[in-house]
Amino acid sequence: MKTKKNKKTRIDKKIDKIEIIPLGGLESIGKNMTLIKYKEEIIIIDCGIMFPTTEMPGIDFIIPDFSYLLENKKKIKALIATHGHEDHIGAIPFLFEQINVPLYATKFTLALIKSKFEEKPPRGKPIYKEVHPRKKIKIGPFSIEFIRVNHSIPDGVALAIETDLGTIIHSGDFKIDFSPVDKEVTDLKRFADYGESGVLLFLSDSTNAEKEGFTKSEAILEKKLFDIFSNAKSRIIVATFSSNINRIQQIFDTAQKFNRKVAISGMSMQKNIRIAKSLSYLNFKDDLIVDINKIEAYPKKKLVILGTGTQGEPLSVLTRISKGTHKHVSLEVKDSIVITASVIPGNEKMVINIVNSLMKMGADVFYAKEKDIHVSGHGAAKELKLMLSIIKPKFFMPVHGEFKHLKAHAEIAEKIQEKPSKTIIANNGDILELTKDNFRKKDYVNLSQIYVEGQELGDINNKVINERRTILNEGIMFVTIVVSEGLLLREPHLVTKGFIEDKKMKALPLISKEVLSQAEKMLKDNLTSQEIETHLKKRLSSFIYKNIQKRPLISVQILEV
Amino acid sequence: MKTKKNKKTRIDKKIDKIEIIPLGGLESIGKNMTLIKYKEEIIIIDCGIMFPTTEMPGIDFIIPDFSYLLENKKKIKALIATHGHEDHIGAIPFLFEQINVPLYATKFTLALIKSKFEEKPPRGKPIYKEVHPRKKIKIGPFSIEFIRVNHSIPDGVALAIETDLGTIIHSGDFKIDFSPVDKEVTDLKRFADYGESGVLLFLSDSTNAEKEGFTKSEAILEKKLFDIFSNAKSRIIVATFSSNINRIQQIFDTAQKFNRKVAISGMSMQKNIRIAKSLSYLNFKDDLIVDINKIEAYPKKKLVILGTGTQGEPLSVLTRISKGTHKHVSLEVKDSIVITASVIPGNEKMVINIVNSLMKMGADVFYAKEKDIHVSGHGAAKELKLMLSIIKPKFFMPVHGEFKHLKAHAEIAEKIQEKPSKTIIANNGDILELTKDNFRKKDYVNLSQIYVEGQELGDINNKVINERRTILNEGIMFVTIVVSEGLLLREPHLVTKGFIEDKKMKALPLISKEVLSQAEKMLKDNLTSQEIETHLKKRLSSFIYKNIQKRPLISVQILEV
Repeated sequence: MKTKKNKKTRIDKKIDKIEIIPLGGLESIGKNMTLIKYKEEIIIIDCGIMFPTTEMPGIDFIIPDFSYLLENKKKIKALIATHGHEDHIGAIPFLFEQINVPLYATKFTLALIKSKFEEKPPRGKPIYKEVHPRKKIKIGPFSIEFIRVNHSIPDGVALAIETDLGTIIHSGDFKIDFSPVDKEVTDLKRFADYGESGVLLFLSDSTNAEKEGFTKSEAILEKKLFDIFSNAKSRIIVATFSSNINRIQQIFDTAQKFNRKVAISGMSMQKNIRIAKSLSYLNFKDDLIVDINKIEAYPKKKLVILGTGTQGEPLSVLTRISKGTHKHVSLEVKDSIVITASVIPGNEKMVINIVNSLMKMGADVFYAKEKDIHVSGHGAAKELKLMLSIIKPKFFMPVHGEFKHLKAHAEIAEKIQEKPSKTIIANNGDILELTKDNFRKKDYVNLSQIYVEGQELGDINNKVINERRTILNEGIMFVTIVVSEGLLLREPHLVTKGFIEDKKMKALPLISKEVLSQAEKMLKDNLTSQEIETHLKKRLSSFIYKNIQKRPLISVQILEV
Repeated sequence: MKTKKNKKTRIDKKIDKIEIIPLGGLESIGKNMTLIKYKEEIIIIDCGIMFPTTEMPGIDFIIPDFSYLLENKKKIKALIATHGHEDHIGAIPFLFEQINVPLYATKFTLALIKSKFEEKPPRGKPIYKEVHPRKKIKIGPFSIEFIRVNHSIPDGVALAIETDLGTIIHSGDFKIDFSPVDKEVTDLKRFADYGESGVLLFLSDSTNAEKEGFTKSEAILEKKLFDIFSNAKSRIIVATFSSNINRIQQIFDTAQKFNRKVAISGMSMQKNIRIAKSLSYLNFKDDLIVDINKIEAYPKKKLVILGTGTQGEPLSVLTRISKGTHKHVSLEVKDSIVITASVIPGNEKMVINIVNSLMKMGADVFYAKEKDIHVSGHGAAKELKLMLSIIKPKFFMPVHGEFKHLKAHAEIAEKIQEKPSKTIIANNGDILELTKDNFRKKDYVNLSQIYVEGQELGDINNKVINERRTILNEGIMFVTIVVSEGLLLREPHLVTKGFIEDKKMKALPLISKEVLSQAEKMLKDNLTSQEIETHLKKRLSSFIYKNIQKRPLISVQILEV
């Protein structure tokens, strides 16, 4: 990471200005993280992970690039988490390997952060600051009020950040549900209050900006679940996100209504339910739950099995059931399966494969194509318009989305009565300067993609990913030459992997001959091992392409004995 | 491929029965191919390719397994193609490398098949038999009438196959469009005629069985295109399937209305338009088209660029434009882009990435989320119900779909007034026996996945695919040992690819030491090279997993000098 040199730094310091620096959350959905810097003090909003796409083979997830924070360590005063989803808190343990700052969040969000530290302990002892909706806190030059919002996890909040220059509102992830399961409606009054007294900048969730209308209320799920439970002939297996506590509450409520017991499968599901129950975010009688090891003791018509797997994740409960590898649950013909979540783009095919397998095994499967089987946690166009209309920000910056979402959100802002005087679609790494009168892209920090594989943080550029992709599409060829005192000790040895057999058979003798003649020539010319390696790689690459139209990854070893 | 031994073959021959053998088209969408065998004569319906999923890295496409056909070569009397889509005719050139049978199809479909042979010539000279809707032909014990159906390519037909035992109807791919672009409406009268006189078995397209209602008419596109053209500020770039001649006709018509010229980019698009025009399936004035090399000569507001790329295919026109690598078209800020096709499951992320890039470059992009930007070529639930209701088959077999589509179609059949007395959801390779009174799964042929890479047909099992997948997720390690007369000539040489740097650094010295000690021990024990290789691989695999929790592909070479 490098900050562009800025000769005007000294002059700039005299001007009263705020810097907004998104380190994630833009360009693609995930790894949300935004810095707000004012009077040399920084607050961090969220610190999440991003799940990889198929273009990043073997990667578990991606975290934001913390370099800018490490360089400005002393200025960081707080990390505020808006809610407990992985794309907002998942990277906190990685940050806390290097930095320790006070953590501000609502009760449930804090509990989830603490449970993350149990798996990956922080270096120092974290300082937890529990915050409450409609209450204000003071952090350096910032006075921050937390405002209740609805989302697909309990205890989500937006932030109203007051400064000498004006108020910044960050929406967090939100929708406006007038009949939410947890009875806590998005606090429109407070947003309107701030709107009335003037908001300088609004950063708002763009996830569903392309969707028309209003996202449906969680309440519609109640009827849908009732219908499915009414018609179920045997066990009911429900897959949902383990963080969707309100959905889990609805499943528990319905199970109770039908006198079914619930067996919980999977660590994350069990953990989240335990946390939510202990803090009263989830309410159920203890005897509702039965041990997944003992489900055989209950009549099938009296059982619900709850687990993860809505995205077709290879190790999830639902995937294991569909492959017949679940330790406790083997699917039976009359089982009903309910997949209550939307499919994250890129996962469609995996989910469809599982649906097909489950159906083939004879189960009744209720999934995305079913009406009202799921509602989104993010507000659609009408809700975004409503928020913009009551907040009436001077400047607007859509966040939490791919470019197309941000753009659609910017277009919505253009349509409201008192539209923002300026909207900026930013990129991750932009340094945006905010004054009383202006909002502009001023500079940027260079960010890297930080890949995480197997809980281990790799300082990886894209080289490994590119290697894997090449091998994936073209195969790999290893060429070994054994040399002693400038002479070949034996014919070159070739190994290929990931090649189609026919091509290989056709190509190998040719390539082998080519390597032999090239190597002998180069040795005679007294080239060094390093030179031979480089030249041979280049020659072979075009030779192979000419012969079999493939560009495998080529690795040449010169072994001296 | 092996046919199960059947001791009753002799007795069976006396019973008058038809065999239906689907070699493709079920379980997943693609490689459609169905055999109908009666009185020792076989007709083939369609012979298509399937596009690979992300689980088949590097593969271009998949074709049906022809083994059963090769074993029954002499019985094959005809190959009938219902329409000219790749998943129905794409594998014909591969079949014709081994078999030559008369090809029956409508005019446009035949023309497309002929153009395929230009790229990949058949062994013998094919015999082409042009067929016509409402006309019957006789092939051995089959009398076949071709019935006009609407689809997303012109000249599609269904088949009514009359035999001594009764009539089989195969729907081909169809929808019912009452105002199609080419004025040829699905011939409901003929389906109803057959229904009235009695249909023994109906095989019907299930692609949209999960979708409610009626697929919209192609006619709605006219208004949508008119709106987009009306508002366009500069060039209009349209991406569609090169086979969707009716859609292309609508684009041409709209361009003509707005006095815009059309430049065609891409070989397949140019070829299909040339064929369609020469046979009058596409009508436009010659001066509508301008050379893609000469677009600079025309005002931007007077240009349309037409190409492929609706699925985010890496080499397509739209992908190249989005990456700035198109030879003739570099995107400009006010360009409008129209992607008029639905996204095939599995391609969502690729398409979204392209949409984001194009928008980021400043273009107005109209794609799937836009209302009426595309209509499907397949009938939805109501159309499938309509067909079943007028055909009233005794037996029913849903085809052309994944399991979930076939199941949804079977459920539709259960809901009509005169429902089939039996519905079978079959698998590829099933041998289904049809008599006057019964329809049942009788036997099966084992089928392999036949992968094609770079136009070359590989006799591939899943080994290559699995190798690629392992490397993709776990990386690969090459270990080379140079041996002379039972002694190591130098320390073992290790190379890894696709490993995360950190892991590699940590692991390599350890592994190197382990290889050295193991190899020395094995050499001392006089193990052969083969034995050392096998043992070392096994040892290393568990050693590496224990140390870094990865299971790379391991390749061990013992080089003797």
